[in-house]
Amino acid sequence: MNRKQALKIVEEQLTPHRYEHTLGVMETAIELAAHYGADEKKAELAAIFHDYAKFRPKKEMKRIIEEQGMPKELLVYGKELWHAPVGAFLVEKEAGITDSEVLDAIRYHTAGRPGMTLLEKVIYIADYIEPGRHFPGVDEVREMAKSDLDLALAQSIKNTILFLMKKNLPIYPETFLTYNELTMKAED
Amino acid sequence: MNRKQALKIVEEQLTPHRYEHTLGVMETAIELAAHYGADEKKAELAAIFHDYAKFRPKKEMKRIIEEQGMPKELLVYGKELWHAPVGAFLVEKEAGITDSEVLDAIRYHTAGRPGMTLLEKVIYIADYIEPGRHFPGVDEVREMAKSDLDLALAQSIKNTILFLMKKNLPIYPETFLTYNELTMKAED
Repeated sequence: MNRKQALKIVEEQLTPHRYEHTLGVMETAIELAAHYGADEKKAELAAIFHDYAKFRPKKEMKRIIEEQGMPKELLVYGKELWHAPVGAFLVEKEAGITDSEVLDAIRYHTAGRPGMTLLEKVIYIADYIEPGRHFPGVDEVREMAKSDLDLALAQSIKNTILFLMKKNLPIYPETFLTYNELTMKAED
Repeated sequence: MNRKQALKIVEEQLTPHRYEHTLGVMETAIELAAHYGADEKKAELAAIFHDYAKFRPKKEMKRIIEEQGMPKELLVYGKELWHAPVGAFLVEKEAGITDSEVLDAIRYHTAGRPGMTLLEKVIYIADYIEPGRHFPGVDEVREMAKSDLDLALAQSIKNTILFLMKKNLPIYPETFLTYNELTMKAED
């Protein structure tokens, strides 16, 4: 599938605002992939499809999580996490993308996971720093991403956890474990 | 074992500064137990012995963690966590305390755990707010502890996690699972 075909499929699923965001993630992901030696074509594809399920009804997402035997914890934690694993499932089913690296990059782009692959990190960070993103701390992560992807990842996950804790919201365990893994690596 | 006997045993294990802290925890724990309906005698005993292993050599603590089949994760995370489970073990072995509620209150007084008992919460909070404690946020938790033990616990665990994250240190999984449990309860 080429870029044009992929974008056409995704545009129908998204609001114009979210489609703009997707274009930003795509460009940033390709840049990061080139810089860090990830597969640029896979980065492009994963970026284009990363928010594919964003606007599916919550009921449908919940049903898919249950039927597909996805981690039950997803249902206990924030609904904002659901579109990532559900997206990976639907992108395979509806858009015929079968590359497991691309699907994993979509699956883990919101919560992260310990042992993230280079492509997963590229998509996670691209989603966080694409030019349309404006929030406290994003410029710091943008700078880090120029020279150290793991540092940028650690900082972005830390920002996310702090943001949730300030609101007294629970933290998805995989996200915390990803933070722990990155801080322990940095200590070595 | 009466208070005098217990304090005598513990005094030999601690620095004068840590012994003073222990007296503060004891008094605070008895007050909290009376206020929230926990067993005051058990609270007294657990408080007196909570830091029993604090000054054991790290090598000895590590050996006990391994030999006694304690969670291997303890060895990966901060050494500051070790004296709590090691203390529970040594207090039983060396001081002959067999009450499992008291031993659990010692065991979980630093990391916490999901599903903490009332006595465990009392010791955790008493350790955090005893009069000798002076650090940012402690007064807020002191106030909360007068009316809502779970709120005080959630806030103190949150403070601890934020403190560790500011230093880019990993968070012991049981600690953030305790945070999650408390925030999810508060949401209900």
